[in-house]
Amino acid sequence: MEIPQSIAPPTRICAVIGNPVAHSLSPAIHNAAFEALGLDYVYLAFKVENVKEAMEKVRATENFRGLSVTIPHKIEALKYMDEIAEVDRAIGSINTVIHEQNKLIGRGTDGPSALKALADAGVDLENKTVLMLGAGGAARAIAFPLTGTLKLRQLSMLDINETLLQQLRGDLQRGTSTPITAEPLTGPSLAKAMVAADVVIHCTSVGMHPREDASLVPPELFRPEQVVFDIVYTPLETRLLAEARRRGCTVIRGSEMFINQAALQFKYFTGLDAPVEIMRRVVMEQLQS
Amino acid sequence: MEIPQSIAPPTRICAVIGNPVAHSLSPAIHNAAFEALGLDYVYLAFKVENVKEAMEKVRATENFRGLSVTIPHKIEALKYMDEIAEVDRAIGSINTVIHEQNKLIGRGTDGPSALKALADAGVDLENKTVLMLGAGGAARAIAFPLTGTLKLRQLSMLDINETLLQQLRGDLQRGTSTPITAEPLTGPSLAKAMVAADVVIHCTSVGMHPREDASLVPPELFRPEQVVFDIVYTPLETRLLAEARRRGCTVIRGSEMFINQAALQFKYFTGLDAPVEIMRRVVMEQLQS
Repeated sequence: MEIPQSIAPPTRICAVIGNPVAHSLSPAIHNAAFEALGLDYVYLAFKVENVKEAMEKVRATENFRGLSVTIPHKIEALKYMDEIAEVDRAIGSINTVIHEQNKLIGRGTDGPSALKALADAGVDLENKTVLMLGAGGAARAIAFPLTGTLKLRQLSMLDINETLLQQLRGDLQRGTSTPITAEPLTGPSLAKAMVAADVVIHCTSVGMHPREDASLVPPELFRPEQVVFDIVYTPLETRLLAEARRRGCTVIRGSEMFINQAALQFKYFTGLDAPVEIMRRVVMEQLQS
Repeated sequence: MEIPQSIAPPTRICAVIGNPVAHSLSPAIHNAAFEALGLDYVYLAFKVENVKEAMEKVRATENFRGLSVTIPHKIEALKYMDEIAEVDRAIGSINTVIHEQNKLIGRGTDGPSALKALADAGVDLENKTVLMLGAGGAARAIAFPLTGTLKLRQLSMLDINETLLQQLRGDLQRGTSTPITAEPLTGPSLAKAMVAADVVIHCTSVGMHPREDASLVPPELFRPEQVVFDIVYTPLETRLLAEARRRGCTVIRGSEMFINQAALQFKYFTGLDAPVEIMRRVVMEQLQS
């Protein structure tokens, strides 16, 4: 990670680190937002293999303000933080680093952004049965605030990986009184869970570009009164969402969560409210093309 | 990990490390085999949290002969080895450590043991289409020798985790000319893959005790000419295997692979051929009770 010499202080630097990062939308989104507000900030993208080294460089660069952290570094990054919220420690990963007074502060923005996407769509989760498909990193990030801050009737989780599933259930149950079930994802278990679910949150990568023809949920299982939220945002409307919409469900796109988390990162980096509509326009332009 | 003082040299020590390890069958299997051959060996179980420390203790204990490594330490253990086969480095995990002349040698026995289970059942894989369900650690361990040493017609892999799937496909393709497809695991993709599959290898934890009523494959998809191999061995006959058997398939139990890998570890630890029938009897006694 080479910081360009032409960017002199006091220009504040932010960046996304990951591997790969070439296709990240974050530079376009954040730079458009910086420009819109006339901020002397620049947002770069670094392909990083050595996370520890990258964190040291941020720490050593006074005007380096923050990082977005993406795959595969979200788990390792947590190790190098000076400060971290309890919920992010429980989740076990972060996607945001704020460099403040020589300290690195780690934050996860995925969970709050998913909850905001649901709230913005007018979904009241109180006393609702939520079905979560997948028990990996994204599911963890959403499940902790979901069960820790809201009063659901029940959270049901399905995955084909029993280890992930039981670990997540165990970790969640220490911090909530919400009843949680975790079962192997099979045709029959999915059909049964779909009957009970008020809200479905799809947290796997099934249906993501370039595998756009895939969906975990057979369309006949959707009921019009259900809310279906897909965290996948490439394509903008996944097959899962298109089929749920056709069956009359309320659908929430992953792009909403993605925009929310970028806006929250912007707030962490600058202390200012993000120009959300500018950010949304950039995301839509990039994803519709 | 405290090595009992009452075990004096020259008694050779072997052990399984993991977390948890309380229910490991390995001590019963290996101790029965040691006894049957009159070897001055003992096999212990250590619940280990710090893998590095455990490896240092093995290295510092001259009569410590070897380790079986189980969940969650199979990936980390690889870091502390002095010697490792190229295939195990590609797989990215090991389950066996041999302590030899102050060196730690890492080996993976899962892949060869799965292939032996197939060969012992008379399954000729040459020019066959193999469907692998799951792309996690166990799938990696089997897929590398499968594509690296045999001439399949095709390997198809299905998982709900696109990252695991594409990583495994990419890694495999560097070492084989076997055509490999990797797709999201959904009802339709599974149905389509089952039509083409000569051999199905189930590498997820679905159907494992205590979730014995689960199976990834709807029974109507099995054809009598198929071979179905489940790496899950608790219960001995999973629902997947029971349904495949009922539909006329040739079935191979995970216990076969489990016995093979214990026998291969025994060979690494002692230099002697394992008393396989003794080991099998112990496994059957433990799993049938």
